[in-house]
Amino acid sequence: MKREDVTEKVLSKKRLARLTWAEIAERIGGASPVLITAALMGQMPMTAEQAAVAAELFGLDEEETLLLQEIPYRGSLPTAVPTDPLIYRFYELVSVYGTTWKELIQEEFGDGIMSAIDFEMEMDRQPDPKGDRVKITMSGKFLPYKRF
Amino acid sequence: MKREDVTEKVLSKKRLARLTWAEIAERIGGASPVLITAALMGQMPMTAEQAAVAAELFGLDEEETLLLQEIPYRGSLPTAVPTDPLIYRFYELVSVYGTTWKELIQEEFGDGIMSAIDFEMEMDRQPDPKGDRVKITMSGKFLPYKRF
Amino acid sequence: MKREDVTEKVLSKKRLARLTWAEIAERIGGASPVLITAALMGQMPMTAEQAAVAAELFGLDEEETLLLQEIPYRGSLPTAVPTDPLIYRFYELVSVYGTTWKELIQEEFGDGIMSAIDFEMEMDRQPDPKGDRVKITMSGKFLPYKRF
Amino acid sequence: MKREDVTEKVLSKKRLARLTWAEIAERIGGASPVLITAALMGQMPMTAEQAAVAAELFGLDEEETLLLQEIPYRGSLPTAVPTDPLIYRFYELVSVYGTTWKELIQEEFGDGIMSAIDFEMEMDRQPDPKGDRVKITMSGKFLPYKRF
Amino acid sequence: MKREDVTEKVLSKKRLARLTWAEIAERIGGASPVLITAALMGQMPMTAEQAAVAAELFGLDEEETLLLQEIPYRGSLPTAVPTDPLIYRFYELVSVYGTTWKELIQEEFGDGIMSAIDFEMEMDRQPDPKGDRVKITMSGKFLPYKRF
Amino acid sequence: MKREDVTEKVLSKKRLARLTWAEIAERIGGASPVLITAALMGQMPMTAEQAAVAAELFGLDEEETLLLQEIPYRGSLPTAVPTDPLIYRFYELVSVYGTTWKELIQEEFGDGIMSAIDFEMEMDRQPDPKGDRVKITMSGKFLPYKRF
Amino acid sequence: MKREDVTEKVLSKKRLARLTWAEIAERIGGASPVLITAALMGQMPMTAEQAAVAAELFGLDEEETLLLQEIPYRGSLPTAVPTDPLIYRFYELVSVYGTTWKELIQEEFGDGIMSAIDFEMEMDRQPDPKGDRVKITMSGKFLPYKRF
Amino acid sequence: MKREDVTEKVLSKKRLARLTWAEIAERIGGASPVLITAALMGQMPMTAEQAAVAAELFGLDEEETLLLQEIPYRGSLPTAVPTDPLIYRFYELVSVYGTTWKELIQEEFGDGIMSAIDFEMEMDRQPDPKGDRVKITMSGKFLPYKRF
Amino acid sequence: MKREDVTEKVLSKKRLARLTWAEIAERIGGASPVLITAALMGQMPMTAEQAAVAAELFGLDEEETLLLQEIPYRGSLPTAVPTDPLIYRFYELVSVYGTTWKELIQEEFGDGIMSAIDFEMEMDRQPDPKGDRVKITMSGKFLPYKRF
Amino acid sequence: MKREDVTEKVLSKKRLARLTWAEIAERIGGASPVLITAALMGQMPMTAEQAAVAAELFGLDEEETLLLQEIPYRGSLPTAVPTDPLIYRFYELVSVYGTTWKELIQEEFGDGIMSAIDFEMEMDRQPDPKGDRVKITMSGKFLPYKRF
Repeated sequence: MKREDVTEKVLSKKRLARLTWAEIAERIGGASPVLITAALMGQMPMTAEQAAVAAELFGLDEEETLLLQEIPYRGSLPTAVPTDPLIYRFYELVSVYGTTWKELIQEEFGDGIMSAIDFEMEMDRQPDPKGDRVKITMSGKFLPYKRF
Repeated sequence: MKREDVTEKVLSKKRLARLTWAEIAERIGGASPVLITAALMGQMPMTAEQAAVAAELFGLDEEETLLLQEIPYRGSLPTAVPTDPLIYRFYELVSVYGTTWKELIQEEFGDGIMSAIDFEMEMDRQPDPKGDRVKITMSGKFLPYKRF
Repeated sequence: MKREDVTEKVLSKKRLARLTWAEIAERIGGASPVLITAALMGQMPMTAEQAAVAAELFGLDEEETLLLQEIPYRGSLPTAVPTDPLIYRFYELVSVYGTTWKELIQEEFGDGIMSAIDFEMEMDRQPDPKGDRVKITMSGKFLPYKRF
Repeated sequence: MKREDVTEKVLSKKRLARLTWAEIAERIGGASPVLITAALMGQMPMTAEQAAVAAELFGLDEEETLLLQEIPYRGSLPTAVPTDPLIYRFYELVSVYGTTWKELIQEEFGDGIMSAIDFEMEMDRQPDPKGDRVKITMSGKFLPYKRF
Repeated sequence: MKREDVTEKVLSKKRLARLTWAEIAERIGGASPVLITAALMGQMPMTAEQAAVAAELFGLDEEETLLLQEIPYRGSLPTAVPTDPLIYRFYELVSVYGTTWKELIQEEFGDGIMSAIDFEMEMDRQPDPKGDRVKITMSGKFLPYKRF
Repeated sequence: MKREDVTEKVLSKKRLARLTWAEIAERIGGASPVLITAALMGQMPMTAEQAAVAAELFGLDEEETLLLQEIPYRGSLPTAVPTDPLIYRFYELVSVYGTTWKELIQEEFGDGIMSAIDFEMEMDRQPDPKGDRVKITMSGKFLPYKRF
Repeated sequence: MKREDVTEKVLSKKRLARLTWAEIAERIGGASPVLITAALMGQMPMTAEQAAVAAELFGLDEEETLLLQEIPYRGSLPTAVPTDPLIYRFYELVSVYGTTWKELIQEEFGDGIMSAIDFEMEMDRQPDPKGDRVKITMSGKFLPYKRF
Repeated sequence: MKREDVTEKVLSKKRLARLTWAEIAERIGGASPVLITAALMGQMPMTAEQAAVAAELFGLDEEETLLLQEIPYRGSLPTAVPTDPLIYRFYELVSVYGTTWKELIQEEFGDGIMSAIDFEMEMDRQPDPKGDRVKITMSGKFLPYKRF
Repeated sequence: MKREDVTEKVLSKKRLARLTWAEIAERIGGASPVLITAALMGQMPMTAEQAAVAAELFGLDEEETLLLQEIPYRGSLPTAVPTDPLIYRFYELVSVYGTTWKELIQEEFGDGIMSAIDFEMEMDRQPDPKGDRVKITMSGKFLPYKRF
Repeated sequence: MKREDVTEKVLSKKRLARLTWAEIAERIGGASPVLITAALMGQMPMTAEQAAVAAELFGLDEEETLLLQEIPYRGSLPTAVPTDPLIYRFYELVSVYGTTWKELIQEEFGDGIMSAIDFEMEMDRQPDPKGDRVKITMSGKFLPYKRF
């Protein structure tokens, strides 16, 4: 059994039960909806408590429940350049603004990176009369390159 | 003459004059520092006024000044998967969280994308006793797929 | 169950029932034949009403019918450069005329893109004594780059 | 000397003379603005007459003028998947709608392709209160697969 | 069911019945052996009559027989650069002589291409005392680029 | 100095002297026009005699003349999948008919390949009221796999 | 059924019967152990006699036995650059010494190649007090480029 | 200055002086012709003595002479899959026989590799009435995987 | 049956039995935990004794037990550039420090490599008040390039 | 001016002055030889003091000296899979042991990564009668995934 099998089963049960990610995240609790969704999409591990609720919600057996608690081999996309338009737009931002981010973060913080591990993120709807906007707030710890 | 040549010249003059992007953005004005940096890195066009100030700051000739106002062939990275660690972390976020973003944005907004064109972004330092954080706030208009 | 499985089942039933896309689109209704074909090829979601008709036409079960209403992970080609000659010719147009489109759209509209989301398309047979022609009319909203 | 050198020189002269493609196409004449732009971008040959006018407009020498009349090695993009957002959107259309085009063209015309050679194209601004639209009309001869 | 499944079944039956392509092509008739082989390898559609004979020869059911009449997603190789030595040699010819073909065809015919659609091909054994030769005769309609 | 430099110089002189490949091949002689064109495109070595005539025709110095006689690093295309439409069509033939060629050559000759080295080729114009055709005749020695 | 299935079955039986390639090659006979191993790994066809012995050794059914006699689609590696260290070292030799081989073979033999078809190879253990050595002797017919 | 520049200069001088690799190797001495050719092609370092003779032969200045003694960044091919037919044949051998080599070397020696570092190689002409053969003898130390 | 199947079964049993790699390595013994983990992940062979214990621990049948003793086709990652963040960081070290390692190892040892075969490695937790550290100690035999 | 130009100049001066990295690192001081080498190879920034010494050692002008203090676009290899054998061996370690490292680090530390930023490394010669060994000690801070 592989993590993808659990993801596929979860998505099937979610579909048939007409559950939303918001409802699922609320029932499982203990973390942001982003994290819980990522876990069920096979990119993050769950705690034992979270996995237990998920098991009940989705009718998972013991191994599936344990798999949800394992750290997965991360990387959720089938190709290096994503083909799905919604996801591609984020890749495009990296491609277009990547060097700009590098210049500005390094000017402000010095030599180092924004962590993608000590990292959190929120997604909100920003009402706008010209059309609502997707607002994403990311915050990652700055990690300075160690001089040795 | 190509846009890259202007970028290289700008970076050289900036270096020798010990200018920061913050100072440059303030002098040029009319847009956020992110946008002005992106323009000087060769990813965005400048307005005629902005280009005129840039020309003075960096000693650009007429063609270089005009090139700054042209819309560039965008894409700032030499490889499809970026090798620079700071930029790679953003690519990693797309790779790991891409399918999660897709699920959550579509659940909230329906079928469509977050625009990377009608889009704005800010970068801030978020003081934190455990180490300051890089905070990035993105906002892109949600564009629903047209049914036809 | 995955979206590809529904596509494969739909194609199988269409084949055995000798249905054409034109007939299918007419029966399902509510959108252009292009959109309905794209949905059944796994690239667009259907409305609940459309999916209900499709379910009847193709003998789909509940999960298959729900899957047709989900937004798919888009990208219908097995390789980055398509191998099928009919589809390759479109890729060739992008490869050969891409920079020309960029020049002309930007000269007319300014900095921005033609949306592939707020987009519609028609395909027609254009009778011609020297051999009929395929006529494709595309129309996408121009989206100006937001200055921020 | 290579065709790219002529393209670069033409773009430089066009920039300094503040010429638009529309003006250039009008002065050169004898073909649609799309074709003339494509030729000057290095993707199509010019006739001797067209090249002569171009030579005058852009101050080209004999070899440059001859090069404009040669059939170029076509392909205007630096990468297989284009990074420029405007051009990428067209690639995305191929990726998402490619199999749909295949189904519909073949249902209507039989086994064959839409020619990218016996092909013409127009681009227009379509006024729209919700935001003007880019309208592209393509027409390519249908070429049936020869049975042998 | 997919076209590959039919190809695999055909190859299996051909193997067990010790049939040659020459025998199969003769029995099916109505086209050259090249075309019939290509069709059974999943690259060309068959006519209803041809498919009916094939169905009998290979014991195909209704859906398999219909699939043989559908236009396949073409492209018969698992990698962009073929690994099989016999097929690679043809790729090598394209790689080595490609620019020569371009020069000579365009000098003789003007701007355009040799069609791979309005195309036919024969393969013959050319007896030679120093070792027999494979003779391939290709003929494709020249398609001039349309000036528009 | 590299072979590409000689190719570029030859093409430049050919252009300015309004020479055709046919004229060049006739003057140089000693081989088919295909071979001479390939040599001047940098894919084949010339004999000393041929190179001497070429040197006179194109005004080559001693090193350039010697370089024409060296065996080049072959491969004339800038990308693994060619972008030029004329050349791509040949690649497409390999992609679509590759497995068919394999089946038919092996059925006729046994296990082995058609040599791309002990190989010759001709190109002719085939008059046709529906549009002239490009006729290519290839002949390569069959090389049986050695059993050892 | 595919050739890979036969390879997998052969490897499974070989494993359970504790057979070595040396023993298998001896029992099958009629060719070198290299060739027989290559055939059972799916890269070479067997003769009918060899396949019959193999069928007995590995308990193969009729179709499997026939498949062993078919010429396979060659290419035994899952990636263009092999990841297995033993195999990679050979790729490395090509990468590092490739241009040297080209220079030396062409200096000695003229323009042409070492055939990989009319080719044979042996592998031996070369005792050495500093550690035994793998000795590989290859011999391929030199094929001169045909001048035409 | 880069190693490629020295290689290019050496090749130019060799060409003009009509030197062969055999002559060069004899004059430089101290190693096999394969090694000396590889060094001058930029893949191996020379000793100080060898470099001194090379400097005299090719008229190299001090830095060029030192560069010949530096260990180069190895890898002599412009693409992962080589396009030159002579070199490709070796790649093909790896692709076709790679898994066979792995099976046979490991059966004879156990778990480990044939070193490409503690490695030597000879190339000879093997006279043969049916056409002379290229004989390559490789010998690499077997390196067993260390158990730890 | 393939090695991946054994890996998948081992991971499943390990999961359900709540075993850690430390416990498994201790029970199997005879090698470092790194080596035993690598073997069970399908990258190293086990000895017969080790495989016997593993068979008991994980309930493996005869063929699975034998497969654990076979030398696998190595390479544990699904893509050339790893997508998993933990593994990517090591790839990043190679990308950033690769040329530095080359300079320093060669300055100290001369021309050669650090063996990845005669190689061993340890991993330890290095307590640190600012956050514990992962300490990796690698030791590979230096292999000098053989001069021949 | 680009960072590569400085690297090339430094390497040229180092070569002509017969300097070793050890000597250079000692003279520049303030960091480990690994870091100083990496900086001069274009992968790390220098402090102003270090750059001043480097400027004197290598005769750098003002802009070159400033460039040494800038944070470079990191990534020192020309291809995603390195071709140089010394560097490739490290890539091989990632490819073979990557999943093992993942298992063991996560078992010991939980979900997270070993930082490649808060990271240090040493390289030593480990005398060994069977051949000296390269010893590399790496230590990177463990960064736990933030739960949010």
